[in-house]
Amino acid sequence: MNKPILNPKSVTITRGALPGSRKLVENGVPFREVPLSGGEAPVRLYDTSGPYTDEIAAIDIEKGLAARRRDWILARGDVEEYVGRDRRPEDDGLKAGERLSVPQFQRAGVTLLRAKPGRNVTQLHYARQGLITEEMKFIAARENLGRSALADGNSFGAAIPGFITPEFVREEVARGRAIIPSNINHPETEPMIIGRNFLTKVNANIGNSAVTSGVAEEVEKLVWSIRWGADTVMDLSTGRHIHTIREWIIRNSPVPIGTVPIYQALEKVGGVAEELTWELYRDTLIEQCEQGVDYFTVHAGVRLAHIPLTAERVTGIVSRGGSILAKWCLAHHRENFLYTHFEEICELLKQYDVAFSLGDGLRPGSTADANDAAQFAELDTLGELNKIAQKHDVQVMIEGPGHVPMHKIKENMDRQLKVCDEAPFYTLGPLTTDVAPGYDHITSAIGAAMIGWFGTAMLCYVTPKEHLGLPDRDDVKAGVIAYRIAAHAADLAKGHPAARIWDDAMSKARFEFRWRDQFALALDPETAQLYHDETLPADGAKVAHFCSMCGPKFCSMKISQEVRDAAKGNNDTLSTAEIRAAMAKKSEEFKQAGGEIYLQQPAAE
Amino acid sequence: MNKPILNPKSVTITRGALPGSRKLVENGVPFREVPLSGGEAPVRLYDTSGPYTDEIAAIDIEKGLAARRRDWILARGDVEEYVGRDRRPEDDGLKAGERLSVPQFQRAGVTLLRAKPGRNVTQLHYARQGLITEEMKFIAARENLGRSALADGNSFGAAIPGFITPEFVREEVARGRAIIPSNINHPETEPMIIGRNFLTKVNANIGNSAVTSGVAEEVEKLVWSIRWGADTVMDLSTGRHIHTIREWIIRNSPVPIGTVPIYQALEKVGGVAEELTWELYRDTLIEQCEQGVDYFTVHAGVRLAHIPLTAERVTGIVSRGGSILAKWCLAHHRENFLYTHFEEICELLKQYDVAFSLGDGLRPGSTADANDAAQFAELDTLGELNKIAQKHDVQVMIEGPGHVPMHKIKENMDRQLKVCDEAPFYTLGPLTTDVAPGYDHITSAIGAAMIGWFGTAMLCYVTPKEHLGLPDRDDVKAGVIAYRIAAHAADLAKGHPAARIWDDAMSKARFEFRWRDQFALALDPETAQLYHDETLPADGAKVAHFCSMCGPKFCSMKISQEVRDAAKGNNDTLSTAEIRAAMAKKSEEFKQAGGEIYLQQPAAE
Repeated sequence: MNKPILNPKSVTITRGALPGSRKLVENGVPFREVPLSGGEAPVRLYDTSGPYTDEIAAIDIEKGLAARRRDWILARGDVEEYVGRDRRPEDDGLKAGERLSVPQFQRAGVTLLRAKPGRNVTQLHYARQGLITEEMKFIAARENLGRSALADGNSFGAAIPGFITPEFVREEVARGRAIIPSNINHPETEPMIIGRNFLTKVNANIGNSAVTSGVAEEVEKLVWSIRWGADTVMDLSTGRHIHTIREWIIRNSPVPIGTVPIYQALEKVGGVAEELTWELYRDTLIEQCEQGVDYFTVHAGVRLAHIPLTAERVTGIVSRGGSILAKWCLAHHRENFLYTHFEEICELLKQYDVAFSLGDGLRPGSTADANDAAQFAELDTLGELNKIAQKHDVQVMIEGPGHVPMHKIKENMDRQLKVCDEAPFYTLGPLTTDVAPGYDHITSAIGAAMIGWFGTAMLCYVTPKEHLGLPDRDDVKAGVIAYRIAAHAADLAKGHPAARIWDDAMSKARFEFRWRDQFALALDPETAQLYHDETLPADGAKVAHFCSMCGPKFCSMKISQEVRDAAKGNNDTLSTAEIRAAMAKKSEEFKQAGGEIYLQQPAAE
Repeated sequence: MNKPILNPKSVTITRGALPGSRKLVENGVPFREVPLSGGEAPVRLYDTSGPYTDEIAAIDIEKGLAARRRDWILARGDVEEYVGRDRRPEDDGLKAGERLSVPQFQRAGVTLLRAKPGRNVTQLHYARQGLITEEMKFIAARENLGRSALADGNSFGAAIPGFITPEFVREEVARGRAIIPSNINHPETEPMIIGRNFLTKVNANIGNSAVTSGVAEEVEKLVWSIRWGADTVMDLSTGRHIHTIREWIIRNSPVPIGTVPIYQALEKVGGVAEELTWELYRDTLIEQCEQGVDYFTVHAGVRLAHIPLTAERVTGIVSRGGSILAKWCLAHHRENFLYTHFEEICELLKQYDVAFSLGDGLRPGSTADANDAAQFAELDTLGELNKIAQKHDVQVMIEGPGHVPMHKIKENMDRQLKVCDEAPFYTLGPLTTDVAPGYDHITSAIGAAMIGWFGTAMLCYVTPKEHLGLPDRDDVKAGVIAYRIAAHAADLAKGHPAARIWDDAMSKARFEFRWRDQFALALDPETAQLYHDETLPADGAKVAHFCSMCGPKFCSMKISQEVRDAAKGNNDTLSTAEIRAAMAKKSEEFKQAGGEIYLQQPAAE
């Protein structure tokens, strides 16, 4: 997949349900349903994969996905159609006269939308007006799965209800504790929510780079990421054809798309940070608002006065956006223009409902730099900016680190909740050690699981190639799976009602040797089956009461079943209560026989 | 590696230092030393790999390793040479008349050792007598690396000193808070210690099975495991040739070897649990004591009365040993013979200094069963048995779970510390979710890192094949690396003085674009370099200030360096303090220019 493939027709988009699962769409809301054997009820799982896993959906990436939300948006009566800004060669990083060498996405007959003058079209604005939107109803259905009650857990002060109602969704959005990224120019999304009282979400980063790049290949990267469970995808492309690649991605994406607009702005000034201007940046924001980007990383917290705080760090400033802005600040010796123009950005974003992802440009790039003065000074600024955005009813999440040893993770969460008024936290890992390049999906899944448990709403994945190179297809999958594990472990520990069902179904299938059910229920059914078949390829092994881990005589679960059978006296109709009674009786016999710890054993034995 | 290779000559034993590292042996104590460029001092890392990574060491697996500890043992004057028990066909799982089909290890001219009558040869006994053994001195040097002071961390009440003295090692052993597994018949070991006030250790399981098996292949599995950082190795072989395979492993192992003797005992009775007897089990213990096994997993805590507590579990009893003993208990309706004969086992183990690893036969096999009555009833029994073993001066560690959601992990550690008087805890993971078969090295590394931080002394690895099949070479490496990450993250969070040095060296190399140093310092240098070279194969890239992750214009660390240069005004001789002053001056200028958040921008920009 490393070679650029420029013709969309030549790219194979991955289709079909995961093995053993089926796509279920109920009142328009998608789920992954896993039918089980042994008389067990099917298990319903959260599904981020869009129509690509729906066997009967017609997919044509040249047409894009259906604009499912457009009617909802128009019905609210607060938007207008308009003709957007002119397309320019520099939007694609082209010099004047240079031609695009990749195909354009043809968006037939769709006009752009923006808020009518004086109107605010954010989900936050609606929520504060008391309006339960269609998006909120969709989310309530999606988050519930099949839950009935709050499970056992420790949610560190989160307020997870037993059942998610549309009104609960509205309340959480209204108080700024959750966001629904949903640009009105990206009506193709299946609405989703990011907030600590909902299922923990995962973001995957994709994008070309100056070294390797492609176009339709990027659509497949998107499809691949969401197949394995990415809830949002950030397009971090930095090379040429940025605008065109983004268009292909957004039109084919059922999940919210995030970007870092300063990357594209920098392309437009030939990579020279000092030449960035507010006007050019603002124009880039409009360009991306019109395309349908759902959230923007904005590094408005990198203030000039914070930069000296990084001087004695082991790894300085490691955020790309943070570095660009720090350089601009120092070159001009002026305050960060994103900070000084922040209210103007708010004014723009509320016309499209683009959410802020307030970037942590001063995040630590090594465990040595974790929780230092620079990091927390910026966090304080992000808290201040959050208040301004909230005043404008613009949705906000806050980005977090980075590299943090385990004992410093909780402080990050606690400070963020406090200074950012519980706005959703969105962290990159954190990596809990620096010494394992090649395995940073693991070093960071440890930190991600912990901070997710403590209250982080979305976890930005890290792939095995972090610090080393551009992730390929296998790396993207490895990163998404590691982060789905972290997110699910967090949900389980928080006591999220929907989480336990899945684990218990898997464990029951395991105990009953229903191998096919175990594969089907797996986060990655393909790998689970592959690993099993590697040593026991015969199909019969899938119903046999042993596997190659132990050998026929040694499988502990088989012995454990025999123990139960023995306790039952071969009477299969005994209830569990009766088994307990029978076992208790035997135990009682033991006690009546003396109950001594050191019984005299018969000599013969 | 799946095909059995029975001729030791045909197996390639992996040799040579890790790329970019060199073996350093200082006063007999081995280290991995990483020389660095850029004027940086070399970094010294803990090294479990034995002579196999020493370029000049002569290795012949048919002769085994040098018996480095034999002189130390003999010098203590409390052991006698003797002729051991007769070798029997059933030791190798052979029927009468059946012949061994694998080569025997020829242990030329070495006689067995055991304690003289009435003597106790355990390191615990010596420690309590006030004796600092050679093993303790070796360990002190090994644990120190190059540390000087206690780092910042939260050790949850552990008592980690800034510098490990031999006397500190003795004290920790004497109070039963650390163990030195060191069978006097395994003099080939490089002494190591397991305890919460020392570096967190990792165990790897190897072994054949009834389905696939080999002999010298097992030696290479051992060498491969310790190459990547396993501190001890458990031989869990269950098929034929058990005795012979174990002999090959022990004679070639520089790390302590653990076993679960009930597995071999069960082989001797044809796999029928009911036919196990104390006499047969005891004879198996003697067989393994004489071979040199350093610690035994003994499931003496699976009491008859605990079994009914598992009846309503989702996954019943999942420990193999636990299942075998539960079946025996129920079949005979008598107390577990390991429990009733526990003091006799102590009497035996102290003659050889074999340590107990008190098995958690009732550990949870699913997150649903975590921290239940059965698990904690057994833990209480293990605490009781620990007191008995301590009375006999026999070294003890306590095994722990298993499958535990994050919010229930700390309770495991806290209860274990309390009821087992801080005897070292040795946990399997725990896995923090059940839903990711194929990735259980990750689901469990999360739990392992956390419980390691909380105080677990040794982490038993889990491979990606857990629940699915027998791990191959790649799985063993993946498991060991994931667990080295967990152990190191734990050491970092505990504030272990030796831990930070490594991370900081890596971070500094990263910031300074010393690519080769980053590879050399990596936990897995091969993978780090491979991943980097996949996208930028040219050698020049290793000193270039960019990588394919970002592209030439975007590397944030490069920009961050430019920021520093700009702040320095291109004067390379400025000190950090001067940089700070220069930066502060510029910041001051900003404040004097108005300090307003929303400065009026010049129209031109």
